Amino acid sequence: MSKEITSRAQDYSQWYNDLVIKGELADYSAVRGCMVIKPYGFALWENMRDALDKMFKDTGHVNAYFPLFVPKSLFEAEEKNAEGFAKECAVVTHYRLKTDPNNKGKLMVDPEAKLEEELVVRPTSEAIIWNTYKTWIQSYRDLPILVNQWANVVRWEMRTRLFLRTAEFLWQEGHTAHATKEEAIEETVKMLHVYADFVENWMALPVIKGVKSESERFAGAVDTYCIEALMQDGKALQAGTSHFLGQNFAKAFDVKFSNKENQLDYVWATSWGVSTRLIGALVMAHSDDEGLILPPKIAPLQVVIVPIYKGDEQKKIVDEKADEILANLKSLGVRVKYDDNDNTRPGWKFAEYEKKGVPVRITLGARDLENSHVEIARRDTREKELIHTDGLAQYVDGLLRTIQRNMYDKAKQYQQEHITEANSKEELIELLDNKGGFISAHWDGTPETEEAIKDATKATIRCIPLDNKQEAGVCVWSGKPSAQRVLFARAY
Amino acid sequence: MSKEITSRAQDYSQWYNDLVIKGELADYSAVRGCMVIKPYGFALWENMRDALDKMFKDTGHVNAYFPLFVPKSLFEAEEKNAEGFAKECAVVTHYRLKTDPNNKGKLMVDPEAKLEEELVVRPTSEAIIWNTYKTWIQSYRDLPILVNQWANVVRWEMRTRLFLRTAEFLWQEGHTAHATKEEAIEETVKMLHVYADFVENWMALPVIKGVKSESERFAGAVDTYCIEALMQDGKALQAGTSHFLGQNFAKAFDVKFSNKENQLDYVWATSWGVSTRLIGALVMAHSDDEGLILPPKIAPLQVVIVPIYKGDEQKKIVDEKADEILANLKSLGVRVKYDDNDNTRPGWKFAEYEKKGVPVRITLGARDLENSHVEIARRDTREKELIHTDGLAQYVDGLLRTIQRNMYDKAKQYQQEHITEANSKEELIELLDNKGGFISAHWDGTPETEEAIKDATKATIRCIPLDNKQEAGVCVWSGKPSAQRVLFARAY
Ligand SMILES: [Zn+2]
Ligand SMILES: [Zn+2]
Repeated sequence: MSKEITSRAQDYSQWYNDLVIKGELADYSAVRGCMVIKPYGFALWENMRDALDKMFKDTGHVNAYFPLFVPKSLFEAEEKNAEGFAKECAVVTHYRLKTDPNNKGKLMVDPEAKLEEELVVRPTSEAIIWNTYKTWIQSYRDLPILVNQWANVVRWEMRTRLFLRTAEFLWQEGHTAHATKEEAIEETVKMLHVYADFVENWMALPVIKGVKSESERFAGAVDTYCIEALMQDGKALQAGTSHFLGQNFAKAFDVKFSNKENQLDYVWATSWGVSTRLIGALVMAHSDDEGLILPPKIAPLQVVIVPIYKGDEQKKIVDEKADEILANLKSLGVRVKYDDNDNTRPGWKFAEYEKKGVPVRITLGARDLENSHVEIARRDTREKELIHTDGLAQYVDGLLRTIQRNMYDKAKQYQQEHITEANSKEELIELLDNKGGFISAHWDGTPETEEAIKDATKATIRCIPLDNKQEAGVCVWSGKPSAQRVLFARAY
Repeated sequence: MSKEITSRAQDYSQWYNDLVIKGELADYSAVRGCMVIKPYGFALWENMRDALDKMFKDTGHVNAYFPLFVPKSLFEAEEKNAEGFAKECAVVTHYRLKTDPNNKGKLMVDPEAKLEEELVVRPTSEAIIWNTYKTWIQSYRDLPILVNQWANVVRWEMRTRLFLRTAEFLWQEGHTAHATKEEAIEETVKMLHVYADFVENWMALPVIKGVKSESERFAGAVDTYCIEALMQDGKALQAGTSHFLGQNFAKAFDVKFSNKENQLDYVWATSWGVSTRLIGALVMAHSDDEGLILPPKIAPLQVVIVPIYKGDEQKKIVDEKADEILANLKSLGVRVKYDDNDNTRPGWKFAEYEKKGVPVRITLGARDLENSHVEIARRDTREKELIHTDGLAQYVDGLLRTIQRNMYDKAKQYQQEHITEANSKEELIELLDNKGGFISAHWDGTPETEEAIKDATKATIRCIPLDNKQEAGVCVWSGKPSAQRVLFARAY
């Protein structure tokens, strides 16, 4: 079965695609660059979304919904933001089709239904939201506004990859408004920590928290904070960003409030987002050549029970035991399924659930049951053991927690082994080419050097870690003085 | 306070708008025909969505996500469906903006980034989904497919009204695939019952279940089932539809499966949807001239506690009691808030929460508390009573159930009083003009008569009720023979 999955060693990129498609997370669609998220993949996303949504609400945020379309005149109001996204905008220009007089049964765009002003399909919603906030905010009493939106966005991409880079993707975007700069920065950092907490504790994926260099900033932001994760091929992946927007959008949309001293001031802003891209990170960070490995806390299915029997008599015994185990596991809140489909053989099922990354498989063999045993297989380590049926549910519940922790520990060890110091240009290149991971190196702080490094090595500054050690040195590239090391990596 | 809301008698349509905007459910946006769903309105939608989502999952459905865009060639494949929606399609024709050389700081559509094939922003997803199902379905073993999608859709409308008719709206669309006609019809009817169950038991709004006449069918359907609700002005509102699509989409997209006899056959389809339009129905069916009245089961806030006190000493006593009541209500799962904001006076708060339709208000007066009393105000009847604080939480929890039932009963009584038989053209017109509601009348079954009635009276056939009594008669309009009465109404 696992034959259908290309191995990492053979072709890492194809391995990733195989996992996504054969693990039934998503598939290509008839629309260039857009994907179909299949039920299994969407159930995974629902678990991620629900956990995040609760974290947002627990930190005082509420959800709302803003229009899909942004009129061009609003879109261009914040110039840097507009420039940053202009090249990847899907644009609605007409609002009607009509029957094509020259082509029976076909439709054509009705030239008489041309919009006076074109509508941009939102690539991000700062513009439409700040244009709305203008009507919501008059006084400091209206602040803060702590709003989040779950939505689809579109960024036209020429080279797309399932989950990692698609023209349309699903995400959440928080957009908050504050009376002071300090409060806005505090919010920006708070949400970065929320993201790190989620990715580490739910997705079992350690991240590095930091700030982007100027050239990697979100278009329109004063500062972009990010969490960076490491994939198994040594490449980094930006897993979430939180932006301090200063008063840029307030100025672009003229959003002022009267403060406690009754003076008018521009409102301070943040925005922050994570997307279905996280699923790509999850797949690439944890999986193996047999298929997906999903962390129990977000796995759509945590435990699958597969029966092995011959004849009706054995089937009856196995079914009864399965019902009991199912009930016990469900009462502990475990997401479990009994797969007694007799169209497929146990071996096929084993491979199928391995491919789909189900954390625990319980094999109910009629023979083992005679001795009150069942076989438990862990997906993460692929270890199997015979376990007594007494207290089985508690054991499995504990095992799910062990797997969650083990997946994190393994990824954390990989991450720590892949943060390496480089003290010369040659070392930087050598490490990028032969080891990968994050390279901690001195940088002179200029965009010119950053670009030179990118052009020569394809590596970018992933971030300047929070609470970075200040340490005088010389830039690995320019030899100029440097105040601190930053993290370089090739990235998705 | 309630002065800001136009009364129903004065201007029903303005009353509705006032409720939506001043009740903070939604607002107009800068995008023609698109609305902003505000946090309070979105919390209401979340409660509705979560309840429905659970009902879908309990009936075996799973969620997935399909692309926002439909290539024109796919869109036009099912001709009737395409024709039905062609006139209201937003169309993406370009994928890039560029700086406008003649207009500093402005952007323009880049003429060099014209799409080879235009993309329709989905008005509904049958086309893109059935094009996908083609790759999912080979054998009867792949069936049924029971998939639902929560999504935004766009139908360009010239005359828009918040929630009731907007260019973009949120909805769910179920799309199922079956091996037999019988199974597909069963699914269609099952989901109609799910919708009726939800609207009646969660939204407290009685509906009539029925089948649409041919001319009111969904474009591309063999049969459209619907639930019809009645608003306070006597107009009907279609609250949900469930379509039996026959093999129309399977034929348009060539989706065949091999059945148990190993013969190839086209797959049978259904689709069904409800949208944020339901919020419009909710508002219009239940509210009064003071504001919204929300059913407890879906109200974002079920209980608000408002303190009345003078001085710090009284405040302390009131706060302590509030904490106790809050804790008790929360332990019963009640959504409750203590509003001790001292920037606004109690009278202002009373009006504010009435306007927002919070089902129960508890007034904690320092004086009443001396006698262990609090004042409870019901939003639905606007009755007030003094209640002992002993067992208060249980009392309020029970009261929420009472309110839910009372709202349904009241709406049910209104509905039953507004189903009237008409036995002549004159009676039909007279009832439509002076009483409203559903008019049960004989119809000869022809689209011609249906259209004549619509042209003359603006009333349409809302549905032929399920299990309709077969009763020979003569058509009220044409005088021709009729086999049954159908329900006419003017509708939103
Ligand atoms: Zn043993
Ligand atoms: Zn009393």
